[in-house]
Amino acid sequence: MSTVAAYAAPAAGAPVERTTIERRPVGARDVLIEIKYTGICHSDIHQARGHWGKGIFPMVPGHEIAGVVAEVGPEVTTFAVGDRVGVGCMVDSCRACADCAAGLEQYCQNGPVETYNGVDRDGNPTYGGYSTHIVVDEDFVLRIPDALSLPEAAPLLCAGITTYSPLRHWKAGPGTRVAVVGLGGLGHMAVKFAHTLGAEVTVLSQTLRKKDDGLKLGADHYRATSDPATFEELAGRFDLVLSTVSAPLDMDAYLALLKTDGVLANVGAPEEPVSLNLFRLMLGRRSLAGSAIGGIAETQEMLDFCGEHGIGAEIELIRADQINEAWERILNSDVRYRFVIDVATL
Amino acid sequence: MSTVAAYAAPAAGAPVERTTIERRPVGARDVLIEIKYTGICHSDIHQARGHWGKGIFPMVPGHEIAGVVAEVGPEVTTFAVGDRVGVGCMVDSCRACADCAAGLEQYCQNGPVETYNGVDRDGNPTYGGYSTHIVVDEDFVLRIPDALSLPEAAPLLCAGITTYSPLRHWKAGPGTRVAVVGLGGLGHMAVKFAHTLGAEVTVLSQTLRKKDDGLKLGADHYRATSDPATFEELAGRFDLVLSTVSAPLDMDAYLALLKTDGVLANVGAPEEPVSLNLFRLMLGRRSLAGSAIGGIAETQEMLDFCGEHGIGAEIELIRADQINEAWERILNSDVRYRFVIDVATL
Repeated sequence: MSTVAAYAAPAAGAPVERTTIERRPVGARDVLIEIKYTGICHSDIHQARGHWGKGIFPMVPGHEIAGVVAEVGPEVTTFAVGDRVGVGCMVDSCRACADCAAGLEQYCQNGPVETYNGVDRDGNPTYGGYSTHIVVDEDFVLRIPDALSLPEAAPLLCAGITTYSPLRHWKAGPGTRVAVVGLGGLGHMAVKFAHTLGAEVTVLSQTLRKKDDGLKLGADHYRATSDPATFEELAGRFDLVLSTVSAPLDMDAYLALLKTDGVLANVGAPEEPVSLNLFRLMLGRRSLAGSAIGGIAETQEMLDFCGEHGIGAEIELIRADQINEAWERILNSDVRYRFVIDVATL
Repeated sequence: MSTVAAYAAPAAGAPVERTTIERRPVGARDVLIEIKYTGICHSDIHQARGHWGKGIFPMVPGHEIAGVVAEVGPEVTTFAVGDRVGVGCMVDSCRACADCAAGLEQYCQNGPVETYNGVDRDGNPTYGGYSTHIVVDEDFVLRIPDALSLPEAAPLLCAGITTYSPLRHWKAGPGTRVAVVGLGGLGHMAVKFAHTLGAEVTVLSQTLRKKDDGLKLGADHYRATSDPATFEELAGRFDLVLSTVSAPLDMDAYLALLKTDGVLANVGAPEEPVSLNLFRLMLGRRSLAGSAIGGIAETQEMLDFCGEHGIGAEIELIRADQINEAWERILNSDVRYRFVIDVATL
């Protein structure tokens, strides 16, 4: 056991504050990572405020972790001290079910072990990346390509894979038209990926406020959803609409944007139920779907893809003592496009 | 023009009554069909009662038509007098859009011409199969294999293709588990098809009242949805859940029955919106989808499949003067499993 510095929410809804936590000893197959940068995900706020259930407190959020290997256990074969590595939303899974066997650990039938606010296989709570060090089984550690800067790579571990995976699964590529709903932390990554994969990309955002950014990030078109003409003119246009927002959408209106066999895939989701008319799905054999992060192998594939194409997140680097303020700014949609904590300031 | 006998609803909600209608002259590429049998689809009732919008009256319902070719136009190449043929839910489409080009005339971007309660390309209303004759462009006429009896083949033209198409699209077959929700006109065909395609089939019905029938039709399991244990025990079990009912379902409960990447496909649908929690879709990358009938080529494929495997509908043959009573019995779920009108009695 070692004691490390961290920022934790002591109780649901309380601000995060500096504290210390215990990390387990480095086991035979473990990697000790010196965390350099951690991205702030909207779900950090949801969980720390108890929006998604009770939560385990004190809670150390953070599942967009980039750092350097500081120590490895004796049986570790894939990593060595000094390697640039990342950790995403999971630090383990059952490794026995059909989904784990298929490389879909995120859908593990026994539930993956979440990087924070989870219970590890040893029964202890997990603590995330708002801290200086973390100990993770090597199978859940990702390699960050040399071409990527660590701070810009950190958000790839959640915002990146969350958007890359559905774009690949539903085959965004040359000849396809993809709409990205929302241009935030997830949305801006979706635009970069969909563009690089060769799709024709349209951003659908409430207003045209971030239009210049959107076009720079790779969008071919940028339309305001507050304008009813958007829905009239784009009816039946898209193979894939990827919704990255957690505000409830008018599902029938967005489903009408799909071509025959089109998919409206949700990676953001409101807590309250959404409603839709099933005839919208029957006419055109459309699908309403969802997707959650990606498996470990696919996350590595995404990082390698980013290395090859020079894709990182657009970030604003902050000090650890600015986390609470950053959370407020996220809630006010005042971030372009991801806050990343410089863990050296922690 | 020729005057033929028919049963029509003179106004929305009125009972059907005997009348006459005009059929167009047999054009160069037209086929005149002497209708022998017409199945009664639940949607006949919906449309005749104005549930799906205003409707065109008088309305002659019927889009499950089986008969014999009585005359062909001079340019008809695929059919000859005496051929056993069928007509389903469409009698034409634009033939120019991407969906028509892909053999998905049912999703024609300009709207297929419906067999009744539609407007034909000449501007006249279409009249369906509750009549003695119909004139249809040869491209929308199907061939009924010799192995099938005409009365048992009639319901294949809607109930058959409506269930066959999604089972094929979402790849029901050996090694897959399919649940069929509802054992009515559509559901009983879904069970026959899914079983013959090699899937493990479970019927989910409100009660166990029709269990013996379900097992005889090919189901491996038959579970009551009124029993909460059904949802607990079958959680995460199915590759495909095919809902054939038009009653609103608890979508979250049915989505929980799906495996990772499973699909809940709706071919029946309530008029009112349904609600669901999008997290149900995100966890397990599940899809909620819909499907409507099938294209012309696929409908022929389905009929050939039925001929090869000896699959017809389970029917109760009625006289034309029993149509109104049959409608009431359908609304009371008192039919096993499709009423078919003996058009000789019309």
